[in-house]
Amino acid sequence: MIKIGIVGGTGYTGVELIRLLAKHPQAKLTAITSRKEDGMPVAEMFPSLRGWVDLAFSDPAHADLKQCDVVFFATPNGIAMSQARELLDAGVRVVDLAADYRIKDIATWEKWYGMQHATPELVAEAVYGLPEVNREQIRGARLVANPGCYPTAVQLGFLPLVEKGLVDVNHLIADAKSGVSGAGRKAEVHSLLAEAGDNFKAYGVAGHRHLPEISQGLGNIAGKPVGLTFVPHLTPMIRGIHATLYARLNADVDLQLLYQQRYADEPFVDVLPAGSHPETRSVRGANVCRIAVHRPQGGDTVVVLSAIDNLVKGAAGQAVQNMNIMFDLDEGLGLDVVPLLP
Amino acid sequence: MIKIGIVGGTGYTGVELIRLLAKHPQAKLTAITSRKEDGMPVAEMFPSLRGWVDLAFSDPAHADLKQCDVVFFATPNGIAMSQARELLDAGVRVVDLAADYRIKDIATWEKWYGMQHATPELVAEAVYGLPEVNREQIRGARLVANPGCYPTAVQLGFLPLVEKGLVDVNHLIADAKSGVSGAGRKAEVHSLLAEAGDNFKAYGVAGHRHLPEISQGLGNIAGKPVGLTFVPHLTPMIRGIHATLYARLNADVDLQLLYQQRYADEPFVDVLPAGSHPETRSVRGANVCRIAVHRPQGGDTVVVLSAIDNLVKGAAGQAVQNMNIMFDLDEGLGLDVVPLLP
Amino acid sequence: MIKIGIVGGTGYTGVELIRLLAKHPQAKLTAITSRKEDGMPVAEMFPSLRGWVDLAFSDPAHADLKQCDVVFFATPNGIAMSQARELLDAGVRVVDLAADYRIKDIATWEKWYGMQHATPELVAEAVYGLPEVNREQIRGARLVANPGCYPTAVQLGFLPLVEKGLVDVNHLIADAKSGVSGAGRKAEVHSLLAEAGDNFKAYGVAGHRHLPEISQGLGNIAGKPVGLTFVPHLTPMIRGIHATLYARLNADVDLQLLYQQRYADEPFVDVLPAGSHPETRSVRGANVCRIAVHRPQGGDTVVVLSAIDNLVKGAAGQAVQNMNIMFDLDEGLGLDVVPLLP
Amino acid sequence: MIKIGIVGGTGYTGVELIRLLAKHPQAKLTAITSRKEDGMPVAEMFPSLRGWVDLAFSDPAHADLKQCDVVFFATPNGIAMSQARELLDAGVRVVDLAADYRIKDIATWEKWYGMQHATPELVAEAVYGLPEVNREQIRGARLVANPGCYPTAVQLGFLPLVEKGLVDVNHLIADAKSGVSGAGRKAEVHSLLAEAGDNFKAYGVAGHRHLPEISQGLGNIAGKPVGLTFVPHLTPMIRGIHATLYARLNADVDLQLLYQQRYADEPFVDVLPAGSHPETRSVRGANVCRIAVHRPQGGDTVVVLSAIDNLVKGAAGQAVQNMNIMFDLDEGLGLDVVPLLP
Repeated sequence: MIKIGIVGGTGYTGVELIRLLAKHPQAKLTAITSRKEDGMPVAEMFPSLRGWVDLAFSDPAHADLKQCDVVFFATPNGIAMSQARELLDAGVRVVDLAADYRIKDIATWEKWYGMQHATPELVAEAVYGLPEVNREQIRGARLVANPGCYPTAVQLGFLPLVEKGLVDVNHLIADAKSGVSGAGRKAEVHSLLAEAGDNFKAYGVAGHRHLPEISQGLGNIAGKPVGLTFVPHLTPMIRGIHATLYARLNADVDLQLLYQQRYADEPFVDVLPAGSHPETRSVRGANVCRIAVHRPQGGDTVVVLSAIDNLVKGAAGQAVQNMNIMFDLDEGLGLDVVPLLP
Repeated sequence: MIKIGIVGGTGYTGVELIRLLAKHPQAKLTAITSRKEDGMPVAEMFPSLRGWVDLAFSDPAHADLKQCDVVFFATPNGIAMSQARELLDAGVRVVDLAADYRIKDIATWEKWYGMQHATPELVAEAVYGLPEVNREQIRGARLVANPGCYPTAVQLGFLPLVEKGLVDVNHLIADAKSGVSGAGRKAEVHSLLAEAGDNFKAYGVAGHRHLPEISQGLGNIAGKPVGLTFVPHLTPMIRGIHATLYARLNADVDLQLLYQQRYADEPFVDVLPAGSHPETRSVRGANVCRIAVHRPQGGDTVVVLSAIDNLVKGAAGQAVQNMNIMFDLDEGLGLDVVPLLP
Repeated sequence: MIKIGIVGGTGYTGVELIRLLAKHPQAKLTAITSRKEDGMPVAEMFPSLRGWVDLAFSDPAHADLKQCDVVFFATPNGIAMSQARELLDAGVRVVDLAADYRIKDIATWEKWYGMQHATPELVAEAVYGLPEVNREQIRGARLVANPGCYPTAVQLGFLPLVEKGLVDVNHLIADAKSGVSGAGRKAEVHSLLAEAGDNFKAYGVAGHRHLPEISQGLGNIAGKPVGLTFVPHLTPMIRGIHATLYARLNADVDLQLLYQQRYADEPFVDVLPAGSHPETRSVRGANVCRIAVHRPQGGDTVVVLSAIDNLVKGAAGQAVQNMNIMFDLDEGLGLDVVPLLP
Repeated sequence: MIKIGIVGGTGYTGVELIRLLAKHPQAKLTAITSRKEDGMPVAEMFPSLRGWVDLAFSDPAHADLKQCDVVFFATPNGIAMSQARELLDAGVRVVDLAADYRIKDIATWEKWYGMQHATPELVAEAVYGLPEVNREQIRGARLVANPGCYPTAVQLGFLPLVEKGLVDVNHLIADAKSGVSGAGRKAEVHSLLAEAGDNFKAYGVAGHRHLPEISQGLGNIAGKPVGLTFVPHLTPMIRGIHATLYARLNADVDLQLLYQQRYADEPFVDVLPAGSHPETRSVRGANVCRIAVHRPQGGDTVVVLSAIDNLVKGAAGQAVQNMNIMFDLDEGLGLDVVPLLP
């Protein structure tokens, strides 16, 4: 059994990790930390876990995370970068669900995240945990930077096109829509039901932190810098991201076949039949990205629709997938959840 | 492996049965019928099931349901009563998720359901499938009448009080609130998002079909007729029932202890700590009824809060639980789903 | 023109007052205060008001509220009680939308609100602003305590029965459901869309601050103390309260006629035809309470359904109605809003 | 007073027309037809209108629509085209809220709408009722084709750019999101709360009926054919459209100034300050289009955000605006509604 530590278990990615790991046949939840909730049974804060989890939150100062085989950081940005070094030195592997190790260029990271990086030397070592791109590097990684939710949906959607050089990568457009759990379990006015309910809006059009992450990833795939317009939106639902992607084709290609072949062996990417429209609820609670590709009116604009559950394939599920790869387990262990519909 | 037939697989209780049975280690989905959708792959109608279910819907006329070990009717009222006889005669056991066999008094049933009963002789044989009350009878049953969603939440909530004769059973009040999936996957104006969204209303105050079912069940428990005021409401959410129950105490009793003892051995009833308020989301997707009991201001009115997922403990989950009991399996097989929160 | 001051314009009752008063033909918004947002144009915080309101928020320290004819407090509890005296002394009339002056018994108020009352001598003078009960006293009032949202819905629902002594007032039950705007525009985790959305729960069953307010009001109407069980619930919508009321009849009476006659001359109470079920959306945005009365199965339990928009008839609309009465204007001035449906 | 007839008063655009016209100082609702609901008081079907509308629905066969000054068709496509001729001949002016007269090319219309046009000769006469483009022609029109909801949001968003030739019109992209009331008050499974709630999806990517309408409109503005990729999405809210528009700039220009100048005199288009993100709730219930224009990272891609209430500026409100223009009334008469927020 793999001994698991979770730093920051009171947020949505934390509780989602617990939901998945509680049933993982090779995982043993060993410590779940929370500074504020030290001593409170996890299932008292999240009654959905009654009968599934007996642990209480423990103060990070006292939790012996070094006894774990792997520690997940389900924390705000800036926490993992201060604590990863010590864990790694103790032989503990680390998966960071926040953004601390996602961006290779330190200056870029510091600009977008507004803080000085505490362990820049680890950034180079960290493996970006998108298995569909980096599976082999993940296998041996000590430190995995788990991708952001938008970046997962957008990169998986563009991947086959960009990889083959089939589109103008200087003018990619990603119009993405997220449910409100993407904002985290933080008390903020704009995330109230009375504010975000029955409402739709774009935000961060001038610049969003996931822009450099996506650009970096697509640039690596393309082998050259890409130009991306990324517009995130808030939609009045709890879970789910739907990315609608636009690019200009520079070659004629059977798009359906391209996508099916690229993802034929991927257990967690599902290419829908031609003409489909993936719904976010079709992935609710499950670690899967469903994709459809369209070429409206046979023109030169390709439209890709990519849907994930932001908390699963966009966060905790992908983290478990990465853990499975890191520990040479069946990649789908603990991830056999049938989506909840309706 | 138990060979399973589902009659009427296109509604919400049908797809929910499929979701649960797709992962049940002892169940083999053998036939899923739909008159309208004959030939359509189940996972085409419900993309959430892609990768989980390979079957196509089959016309009930051609599906060889008699080869099944058990057939679930996830149909509108009035279907099971016409088809159960033939299946039972062929040795197939039947679980009806509709109301055909729930009410013992034929005249009462015919009045509330507005049709003549096709097989009244089977009504007497049918076992009301509320395991917390009838577990032993279910074990040997050929024909199980799976309880309604409101009746499950209300009966489990009142059960300890009524069983012990602690309340005035002539004046019970059940104020129940349901998500819209309780109305089924039927195209009706009043269930549209634009009608039922951001809205709250009572309905059927003059009389609802679940009233005689609940009254019969509580009457059996009390050993005498009960008087019940039942007011159902529609609340703008997808899944979940919350029943708020009121009764006048006629004796002093430790209510918390009463409930905890009554349900101590019940795997799917969870009595919350004193002072709690169960949320419907804490049971989302799971086969559990969470209950809290209150006595505000120490008065003589007891208030019970009872929450279930109407599609699981209120329908498909309870049906699987009944099947497990009928076939001497572990009662929780296939029902080990962690609720989805948020 | 009546010069209007609003203390605390950034919450939901504040912005709702502004919405209504912006179109009131006899009102002139003169000052809208906010400690935090001093200088920010009101329409910048609430873009829905662009083109309707030119004022900026002003610091309460600098706003000359004494030049106003009336000041509304749309503040948390405990603010109005410290500031009302000075305004009243300056000849300004005051409407408090918070709870400071609603409860006549100081000890009771201090117990439920957890603070010492700053101006107990004004409590006696304050008129409880439920026009359907206290219209004449409101007319001459200097200081009006605007009722709470639940208390408005519950009192108007019980009023005809209690007034005539037709029910057992020792065992009244009010099962009330509120949209989340009732919790105010406060950053709190439990009001997030990701927490309160697609979810239903009761809260405060052991005791809610509106209990003593309702009990006082119904006790005054009955002429003797009443016993009330009050269970509030949170429902996943933005606006609206639906109260389902239960009482034991002690006399035979034509309930429909009783309600119609009692409210025949009330401009803002609408008794629906027999057999109706008021929906909260039928009052969305409007200052009206819609009521239906039922006697299920002809038994001795009466069921009253009462629906309001918590921000209008349950707060800002009733406050404007009170202002109209206080200033001898047509009671409906500024309140001629057609509910928004769908 | 203008005598008003509404054909098809039971749908969402119909009830929205009634909501607005009930308070219009120069309008007198004279006949509201419904084949199915003949004789039913309008306020019985829509209790929100109790106290505002006394009319009953009348059978179109008996309603004397020819006595009206103007008749609105709030009907499915294909109705107005059969009835407009007779009304026009009788001197009645007509506003069609459906699509019958929106597209000038008959073959295109017949292809997208799947029926033969009954009165092609009227198509040429009909004026496309987008006041910001066609105000003068509307003034004298007998027959106005009221624009679709998506087309209104998209055209107003692109208008200043296309009009001035500042973008590559061969590759316009409109990513549009609509609340479910856009689908009308029709009993359809995909619009159920249990289907469309807590869910997000694109639809009609291969081709949507509003595509030719938008292309025609933008083509007229550009003076040449345009290439448009239009992807509509369904978002789980009741009212509101948010269009996110993308185009490639071919010139340097002060975008903020461009938009402010273009719409300076438009009463119902509101250009937000630079850096803004319009929310759909900021226009809820009101006849206004709020627009923000962005140029992310100073690149050559312009992003326009355009928000309307699909039932108001996208349907009934714009129809009333057109009526006001047609009858030489103040353009804003009856449209002075403050948006409902929250």
